[in-house]
Amino acid sequence: MAGRAGGSVFLLTDYGLADEFAGVVRASVLRHAPGVPIIDLTHGVTPFDVRAGALALARAVRHLGPGVVMAVVDPGVGTSRRAIAVSVSDATARDGPHHFVGPDNGLLPWAVDVLGGVEHAVEISASAAVPLSPLSAPSAPSSSLLQSTGATFDGRDVFAPATARLWQGVSLAELGDPLDPSDLVRLAPPRISVSPGVLEVEVQWVDRFGNVQLAAGPDDAAAAALGPELEVLGATTHRAHVVSAFATLAPGALGLIVDANGHLSLVCDRQSAATVLRVQPGDLVTVRAVVSGRQPS
Amino acid sequence: MAGRAGGSVFLLTDYGLADEFAGVVRASVLRHAPGVPIIDLTHGVTPFDVRAGALALARAVRHLGPGVVMAVVDPGVGTSRRAIAVSVSDATARDGPHHFVGPDNGLLPWAVDVLGGVEHAVEISASAAVPLSPLSAPSAPSSSLLQSTGATFDGRDVFAPATARLWQGVSLAELGDPLDPSDLVRLAPPRISVSPGVLEVEVQWVDRFGNVQLAAGPDDAAAAALGPELEVLGATTHRAHVVSAFATLAPGALGLIVDANGHLSLVCDRQSAATVLRVQPGDLVTVRAVVSGRQPS
Amino acid sequence: MAGRAGGSVFLLTDYGLADEFAGVVRASVLRHAPGVPIIDLTHGVTPFDVRAGALALARAVRHLGPGVVMAVVDPGVGTSRRAIAVSVSDATARDGPHHFVGPDNGLLPWAVDVLGGVEHAVEISASAAVPLSPLSAPSAPSSSLLQSTGATFDGRDVFAPATARLWQGVSLAELGDPLDPSDLVRLAPPRISVSPGVLEVEVQWVDRFGNVQLAAGPDDAAAAALGPELEVLGATTHRAHVVSAFATLAPGALGLIVDANGHLSLVCDRQSAATVLRVQPGDLVTVRAVVSGRQPS
Repeated sequence: MAGRAGGSVFLLTDYGLADEFAGVVRASVLRHAPGVPIIDLTHGVTPFDVRAGALALARAVRHLGPGVVMAVVDPGVGTSRRAIAVSVSDATARDGPHHFVGPDNGLLPWAVDVLGGVEHAVEISASAAVPLSPLSAPSAPSSSLLQSTGATFDGRDVFAPATARLWQGVSLAELGDPLDPSDLVRLAPPRISVSPGVLEVEVQWVDRFGNVQLAAGPDDAAAAALGPELEVLGATTHRAHVVSAFATLAPGALGLIVDANGHLSLVCDRQSAATVLRVQPGDLVTVRAVVSGRQPS
Repeated sequence: MAGRAGGSVFLLTDYGLADEFAGVVRASVLRHAPGVPIIDLTHGVTPFDVRAGALALARAVRHLGPGVVMAVVDPGVGTSRRAIAVSVSDATARDGPHHFVGPDNGLLPWAVDVLGGVEHAVEISASAAVPLSPLSAPSAPSSSLLQSTGATFDGRDVFAPATARLWQGVSLAELGDPLDPSDLVRLAPPRISVSPGVLEVEVQWVDRFGNVQLAAGPDDAAAAALGPELEVLGATTHRAHVVSAFATLAPGALGLIVDANGHLSLVCDRQSAATVLRVQPGDLVTVRAVVSGRQPS
Repeated sequence: MAGRAGGSVFLLTDYGLADEFAGVVRASVLRHAPGVPIIDLTHGVTPFDVRAGALALARAVRHLGPGVVMAVVDPGVGTSRRAIAVSVSDATARDGPHHFVGPDNGLLPWAVDVLGGVEHAVEISASAAVPLSPLSAPSAPSSSLLQSTGATFDGRDVFAPATARLWQGVSLAELGDPLDPSDLVRLAPPRISVSPGVLEVEVQWVDRFGNVQLAAGPDDAAAAALGPELEVLGATTHRAHVVSAFATLAPGALGLIVDANGHLSLVCDRQSAATVLRVQPGDLVTVRAVVSGRQPS
């Protein structure tokens, strides 16, 4: 690839904001790519929750504009899990991110799929990724028992420099050896079961407001022939009905909405549906059609 | 308005930072207005607390410099509440934000008032606000029961594009139909009652450090003829005295200070005054003059 | 200094992100230095914890690239504690921050030391620091009892403008009167005691993941002749062994690692070592060599 790839750098991690981790990564990206606009998607992914990070990234990715995505939720840091960078099929014809960088643990593929899938993939070699050294390295450990160069902070030392270089237009091939895209680690798809009048589906996200996003869309609701009146079985059982806005719900009432990501979500008005239903991500929820006027069985 | 209005885009929401909401809004603004500097004022407004958001924005606005403010605390999203954009009177002669964008629920007017008031207002039409589409839209729901296009994420889909366009110099009139500024929704003013020796006033903010900002200024203290020794009645009753710096207070002692926003605040030294007084925003607090040497009645 | 010093502005505070404090500081920096890239290192330092802020800054500083660091953890705001700005020895020959701005309470020196130490220091005079006024100042208090101009928000009103001016290339001498670098306030060094087979050392950081960073490095472990098998005494006593990656630890097992900052850290795999050991920053921990096969005494 010739010339600068451009756009922004988008960051998604489980580093939190209480420590300086995210700040050091931002600085590392900017140091390696002066002038780059940096957008924090979130650093609030639940620690080590690769699945939650993958879902958040997949929700966000259609709205980002051009650039490079760096995502790090990485319980396997320091092991033989691979650090990868991938390019997006047909990225040049589109307005979205052209490259993704992160660990090979399932975090990236769902988001890349939204954009058309992986074109090329490489395993990032540490030597290729780090053109700049820290100002003064920690003294090399002299103990034979502790002679490693220290646990890796791959966000800072590997992913940030690789991201910066891709943003600058360096080719994927310069970052490491090619991988077969079909060999990338993938997470298990969310569970969903559709039968007449019944949708059994995984909770895939509970947001700040307590909205319960299901791993199903309106087509699934149609396939299950769900009507406007519903029964929802989480840890507790509730009546619900289909709505198009939160504020049309009575206090305490549960609604089923098509949310801003095109998913079915169980919601309340200014109240946490997750608390009402006592569910969390990964739980199964059953949504059943109720013939109007009948009591739930 | 001809040419680029310039400055920065300032964001204030109740989206939190755990989810990707704020990140997607940042990306949406930047995608629609490449090169714009984006400043997060805060995304930590208590969910749905329009009043807290309006107060934070009013506190911040005198210090922002030029640009466009986008504020979203929006329990009525998806209902008929209006999405608005306003221009600031005499903005060209000043150094502050020239436009504000957000829901018409009282969130914006207090801050605009600080800058001189609303000059023009429009109701944002969704079609005017969204020049770019997401890369691949969620599949259109085919269920007749769930045929809406999905609950709106107006921060991403309406307010961010409108903000970006105003930053680029698009005129207010291009965003929608004019509104009478006097028709904008306004919140009830904070409660305050001044009588000789007694100030009864609403708590309008408890900050991270537990400082208790009152809806009153030093002129109100003067009107109530408050002296250096005070009695404060929240959920509990305490002696207090006027101070000019936190660190001049003894451990556990309560002080009354003129804070950095020009408001009276009840404070402790490295301790939460809100915890000591057991008060929260919206509570009424009474501050009484105490003649030196007398016990509180 | 002639011309623009350049680079980025790096912010570290205890302001949190729930209030608008950090946002107003960002805006203030940008208003005084249009075009400056602003990097949040963190605003999540525990309120008033100068030591925690100083340690975070010292960890981050080698990775930042050029620019000006503004750090504010400032329980003494409004008292006679000095506001300072310092330049870094040999900054021109290096790739790191060239100036630091903050309160004179020990927050800055450790980080500056990492870069080679303080070259020059000044006490910032408020008049020199504030070229721009807020748009409309709070009405001057007329009460004789509350006639101060309000508690200072030095982050917004003193440190941000001073930082912006240094970034623009204004010389240190223009910001205030010179101070003897050896007169700057310094924090007590962390406690560490090394003897044969025993390392007694202060916990200096517990991060989001519960990793327990010790105020010791691998050289200290070597000096204490620690072997691969260890006993760790916090509030509770545990066996531990030396590892090079989190994921090589069995569930619940405790490891000693050389972390990404070159410090010894006690860690678990996807679990909080701080919770296991029941320790927090400032606590003393003892790490003892265990001869393989022997039980801990």
